Amino acid sequence: MGAYEDLMAFQRETEALSQVAGRLGWDQETMMPAGATPQRAEEHAAMARVLHARRVDPRIGDWLAGAEPTDAVAAANLRHIRRDFERTAKVPADLAAALAKTTSLAHRVWAEARAQEDVAAFLPMLAEVVSLRVQEAQAIAGNADAYDALLDDYEPQATGASIARMFDSLRPRLVQLREAIREKPAPQTLSGMFDEAAQLMLSEKLALAFGYDVNHGRIDKAVHPFSSGSGLDVRITTRTSAVDPFNCFYSTIHEVGHAAYEQGIADAHLLTPLGRGVSMGVHESQSRIYENQLGRSRAFTGWLYGEMRDAFGDFGIADEDSFFATVNRVSNGFIRTEADEVQYNLHVLLRFDLERALISGDLAVNDLEAAWNDRFRADFGFAVDKPSNGVLQDVHWSEGLFGYFPTYSLGNVYAGCLHKALRNAIPDLDNDLARGDTSRATHWLRDNVQQYGGLRTPVETISHATGAVPSEAPLLDYLEEKFGRIYGL
Amino acid sequence: MGAYEDLMAFQRETEALSQVAGRLGWDQETMMPAGATPQRAEEHAAMARVLHARRVDPRIGDWLAGAEPTDAVAAANLRHIRRDFERTAKVPADLAAALAKTTSLAHRVWAEARAQEDVAAFLPMLAEVVSLRVQEAQAIAGNADAYDALLDDYEPQATGASIARMFDSLRPRLVQLREAIREKPAPQTLSGMFDEAAQLMLSEKLALAFGYDVNHGRIDKAVHPFSSGSGLDVRITTRTSAVDPFNCFYSTIHEVGHAAYEQGIADAHLLTPLGRGVSMGVHESQSRIYENQLGRSRAFTGWLYGEMRDAFGDFGIADEDSFFATVNRVSNGFIRTEADEVQYNLHVLLRFDLERALISGDLAVNDLEAAWNDRFRADFGFAVDKPSNGVLQDVHWSEGLFGYFPTYSLGNVYAGCLHKALRNAIPDLDNDLARGDTSRATHWLRDNVQQYGGLRTPVETISHATGAVPSEAPLLDYLEEKFGRIYGL
Repeated sequence: MGAYEDLMAFQRETEALSQVAGRLGWDQETMMPAGATPQRAEEHAAMARVLHARRVDPRIGDWLAGAEPTDAVAAANLRHIRRDFERTAKVPADLAAALAKTTSLAHRVWAEARAQEDVAAFLPMLAEVVSLRVQEAQAIAGNADAYDALLDDYEPQATGASIARMFDSLRPRLVQLREAIREKPAPQTLSGMFDEAAQLMLSEKLALAFGYDVNHGRIDKAVHPFSSGSGLDVRITTRTSAVDPFNCFYSTIHEVGHAAYEQGIADAHLLTPLGRGVSMGVHESQSRIYENQLGRSRAFTGWLYGEMRDAFGDFGIADEDSFFATVNRVSNGFIRTEADEVQYNLHVLLRFDLERALISGDLAVNDLEAAWNDRFRADFGFAVDKPSNGVLQDVHWSEGLFGYFPTYSLGNVYAGCLHKALRNAIPDLDNDLARGDTSRATHWLRDNVQQYGGLRTPVETISHATGAVPSEAPLLDYLEEKFGRIYGL
Repeated sequence: MGAYEDLMAFQRETEALSQVAGRLGWDQETMMPAGATPQRAEEHAAMARVLHARRVDPRIGDWLAGAEPTDAVAAANLRHIRRDFERTAKVPADLAAALAKTTSLAHRVWAEARAQEDVAAFLPMLAEVVSLRVQEAQAIAGNADAYDALLDDYEPQATGASIARMFDSLRPRLVQLREAIREKPAPQTLSGMFDEAAQLMLSEKLALAFGYDVNHGRIDKAVHPFSSGSGLDVRITTRTSAVDPFNCFYSTIHEVGHAAYEQGIADAHLLTPLGRGVSMGVHESQSRIYENQLGRSRAFTGWLYGEMRDAFGDFGIADEDSFFATVNRVSNGFIRTEADEVQYNLHVLLRFDLERALISGDLAVNDLEAAWNDRFRADFGFAVDKPSNGVLQDVHWSEGLFGYFPTYSLGNVYAGCLHKALRNAIPDLDNDLARGDTSRATHWLRDNVQQYGGLRTPVETISHATGAVPSEAPLLDYLEEKFGRIYGL
């Protein structure tokens, strides 16, 4: 065998082990007995060490030096492997170990600080995490921009500057839209209690309606819904709420979007570097277009209204138009994960600007809470009442995930681009959605985005599907049109 | 750190990875979506290669050379590690690969041959498996007995000759007991249909009654019940049958016996070579004493009768004594896994003698079916009707598991020894069992057997608990007393 074949055989085994490690995480959130926690920590650590040793195996360097790509797929495989190898190899083992240890500790300190509403208790740990991540970024990128080096782990080839340009265009129109909405009467809310078994049945029906392949996946309950796995075994979870069945239904559709991406990748890429979603941003574009542009559309919610009436009887909403408004209700809130389509990105933009300033050193950790609270009041129009509703609400920074937040809004921007192209390609799509039939939409996404996996860069992936460079404009146009209609703006 | 500490740290990580690989098997039988099979095969193979590489890591030899045991636990750890390392290192990589490949193929050929009732289609594969296993035994043991070398993998330090002496004493009294029973009227059978949900509820109640710790385990359904995992995460499975709820209940109690062994090992041995059951035979002794000597006792079945009446209403059995006879009904059958307490060991003894002759070369593969059928008629009194009820019924030989079968009956023999000692220690145990309370019995087993894990050899483990060298006599005395009482012999 040649160097390329040897490299790919080695890589395939690494990908298989990575799937095993990922499923261990799935098991922990869905199946693991509570008392197994200490042993599970050792199992996770052992798998992580095996995977890390493979990722820095010096043979990879030799194979890369000798491998000649013969086609676009091989070139893309080599690009991914080279990128990961060089990135991983640049981080000293001591620094990697310090990061693993400190973030694990910081996570616990954060959880305790959040429970106690005690920002000061968290800040020393956060300062240490920021310092270590900056050291890591410098090890990877030298004197180049540190935030870009971190961002690259989640969204290859994106830069803080290009994202900032996009987000800076997004912010004023979102704030303006939010303010216009706030002057209008709020839509109704659901009333009554919603049976759990009926929620789970309709949740599964929704998953199947959006093309989730249960022959290569399964649906379980978890505290925080997630999608897990690649290739032939892509599992999702959901949750229920007795008073808010939308939480269940739209969590499910969101995770089906992630899972459909993994399930939609061409079989030829199974257990190769191309066999998983290409970036967090593109991944989120799939979950978001399923959840929002399709799942919260007027046409689809018309169908869902009938399904919910069948499942639950009367829940206080008189007709499809009112239901559409209820589904898309914009309301004040502190929490990112509970935010509506209009305000969600404002939450993310706030975090992006603050974390970028933390990494550059423009913002000191000790000034973070004040900066958060000022910005929140500016963008949302009211004040943070307590740290767990403000600077301590998200887990990300305690785990060192700087550069992760912007991929949420990038995903929304990409979903806006894809939705515009999809509607151009299938002008009568609403006729399908009004029957609960998403197949032409999901097949379009599979054919134009999902099947390629990691073949192209994230931006090329969106450009290839839409025929245009990604821009925030389609998302803004979509939001202004949709919420203008609902709120009579 | 010294050599011993380095070795144990390495070993601990191997044990953790081994737990991950085991849980992958659990997932496959309980949770995995059907379409994931091809990917799962690659995941299993990747984990197997990682584990094999660690087991032959040359550093183990260096650490072993430098390690000085400071106490009995350290000495036992070193004994286990040395034994595994030397055994694994002696088998050439080519031979190990050929065995993995051939047994995987032979398993498929066997399944097809069994479905087609075509012994001839399986024999060439079986001959190859036998030849490879003999080569493996010779690589391990040189000119010493090949069967002993294979047996040692499942029951360390046992020999074919010593087991044969024990089994040869067992056989005539078992045949005699079976013949005496056959002349008596058969007990009643259950009648009616048994609700699945009620079976699963009572099954869980039985698991808890026998001390299964669901904080460190869980119960799921599987086609073939099994127990899986060690330490803090020991899971069991069960199955139901609409006409035969005993299948569910006694499968559950059996697997709880295996799981209780793993859960009962002292926390100090977690993720060390002592942290799992010491041998297949001792493991089976726990599952069997839970299932049979305790679970099928007159006292416990009296309690179970009331529970089943509460769960299912009338099922055609008038009183506790009749129910005790029904639970322990002896009936003609071809299939080992469905056999009663009296005849089960006859099935195992047949296989032990035949596989020992196959490995020694005294029996040719081509003569195996005739030998099976002759022996079956001699021990069971009627003729095998088709290969799937005879020589093709068990999966073991296709997978190369020569030396595994005798551990089933060794387990029964050990259970007989332990039961005698248990009854001596707690003379009024039946008062507990008649209330469904097994706690004094299971605590005695935990304190005298389970907690020690792999500290002693298998025979020493039983001797330590019972104060006597293991012998087949207590099992025979128990069977003759119990079935004499049921059948009025």
